[in-house]
Amino acid sequence: MSFPKAEDILAASQRIASLVHHTPVLTSISIDKMVGAKLFFKCENLQKVGAFKYRGATNTLLQLSPAQLKQGVATHSSGNHAQALALAAQLHDTAAYIVMPSNASESKKEAVLGYGAKIIECEPTLDARETTLKQIVAETKAHFIHPYNDIKVIEGQATAAKELIDEIPQLDYLLAPVGGGGLLSGSALSAYYFSPSTKVIGTEPTGADDAYRSFNSDIIISSINPKTIADGLLTSLGTKTFPIIQKHVSQILTVDDDMIVEAMRLIWQRMKIIVEASAAVPLAALMQNAHLFKGKRVGIVLSGGNIDLNRLPFKA
Amino acid sequence: MSFPKAEDILAASQRIASLVHHTPVLTSISIDKMVGAKLFFKCENLQKVGAFKYRGATNTLLQLSPAQLKQGVATHSSGNHAQALALAAQLHDTAAYIVMPSNASESKKEAVLGYGAKIIECEPTLDARETTLKQIVAETKAHFIHPYNDIKVIEGQATAAKELIDEIPQLDYLLAPVGGGGLLSGSALSAYYFSPSTKVIGTEPTGADDAYRSFNSDIIISSINPKTIADGLLTSLGTKTFPIIQKHVSQILTVDDDMIVEAMRLIWQRMKIIVEASAAVPLAALMQNAHLFKGKRVGIVLSGGNIDLNRLPFKA
Repeated sequence: MSFPKAEDILAASQRIASLVHHTPVLTSISIDKMVGAKLFFKCENLQKVGAFKYRGATNTLLQLSPAQLKQGVATHSSGNHAQALALAAQLHDTAAYIVMPSNASESKKEAVLGYGAKIIECEPTLDARETTLKQIVAETKAHFIHPYNDIKVIEGQATAAKELIDEIPQLDYLLAPVGGGGLLSGSALSAYYFSPSTKVIGTEPTGADDAYRSFNSDIIISSINPKTIADGLLTSLGTKTFPIIQKHVSQILTVDDDMIVEAMRLIWQRMKIIVEASAAVPLAALMQNAHLFKGKRVGIVLSGGNIDLNRLPFKA
Repeated sequence: MSFPKAEDILAASQRIASLVHHTPVLTSISIDKMVGAKLFFKCENLQKVGAFKYRGATNTLLQLSPAQLKQGVATHSSGNHAQALALAAQLHDTAAYIVMPSNASESKKEAVLGYGAKIIECEPTLDARETTLKQIVAETKAHFIHPYNDIKVIEGQATAAKELIDEIPQLDYLLAPVGGGGLLSGSALSAYYFSPSTKVIGTEPTGADDAYRSFNSDIIISSINPKTIADGLLTSLGTKTFPIIQKHVSQILTVDDDMIVEAMRLIWQRMKIIVEASAAVPLAALMQNAHLFKGKRVGIVLSGGNIDLNRLPFKA
């Protein structure tokens, strides 16, 4: 398999530039002091639909032919990719069919419906998702856009790290959360091409540590019944993301849910931005392994900010 | 009384540039669609200490003589100005004496102590505040920096609107909340000098509508027992802020607490940033008077993001 090249990521950046937010990089003196490092937060929680996923969805959609666009797009997701694809499709006047498990929260369904997509419910199993998606694609001829295991999606996600690197030179480390690996593999490629001295570290909840186990055993070991508050990271690595991660990521750090909630609260309290639990995983992993980062310049991709304000994980 | 001139605001911008965050301007497609206008949010909630107040405190402190700095600075405030002055003083290695009412929340006291300031408690009355402050100033010879009724403070606060205007040309309106009037008077001057076609509107909670009443009767009418969830706006206009507002603000809109909470929730949910109730007042006023802003380009200063995560005003 051939990896995306530097020019592919540059092309993706240019392709989506006018459609995505160029998100700000924020810093916090008080968090820096607390952890003893200099942190630069790339705020993809402030991206459209509240997550980096809008980059990959947009980059893929823009490369469909007029004939493909006429048939619409489809995916299975109960999370940020669903919203991202729904909005991207809406703005391109094409239909979006989103297969969602019947137990997805009302707020997530509402968000997707709000962007004009059609929801097709299925049983909450991976099998049911895939079968239902196949049916929908067969019926509608819609183009399936995978949440992460797709080269164009990876190239789109890579553009967030690319922007961070362009703005903040000489990062010693770049940390990203890892679920299916779209963001991490894209970030690793951007660092490799545009800031080769920056080490890229994947960060993962202990309760969904398939990337950690896969990375250290050189085969994809999928999670079985993963359990973590970071519900954007329940998915396992894919055949396209794993080889990139194996080659260009220097290590995977895991961290417990308690520390994830602490990091999440710290970001809310000190930085005045809303991040979902998954987005707090890199800071949590850094806090748990502070000795590794003493005095270093560390980039962190804050992946998303979609939370249910009625169900906050800290006392509130 | 002579107002700050364009060159004074430019000088303040340059003076504080390396010490304050150049905060981002964020937009939201979904909120724009909801209100039928194009909104540009200047995110002073992402400023150091989580509020625009850091601009005025820094601008004033930087103009003290070495002899003055040696004696320290003092103020009375239980809010964002206290934190702003505490941090600015800490970074300049000078003492800060903050007079706070004995009923100020623990979280506010902790924040001020965290920046290394000394807290002097007093009875929760305006009289006690002023008497205690006078005593402290007499004892320590510290320089009193008023939360808003000070030309250098006003010039500092003006720099936020200046940055917004520089970045987003041709605003039809600029909305800011008004308490003591430091932010509103500064914003009005920046618009007058740097974007004269932009109309500046002050926005205020109905339960603390002294600016509305003062503006419409041409004398300062102070609030008596103001009551609103927007607790940063309880103070009344000052002798230095009022004349600027009279001359350069086109109108004051008031809005109820229910709408303030709705606007606050909308900003959290859609923009993924944390704003305090006071910062949501301009959007709330705009939502309540949407017909005035149909199709217009509107700048909004989000004044601050300091809230107690354990006491959120919406069900959470």
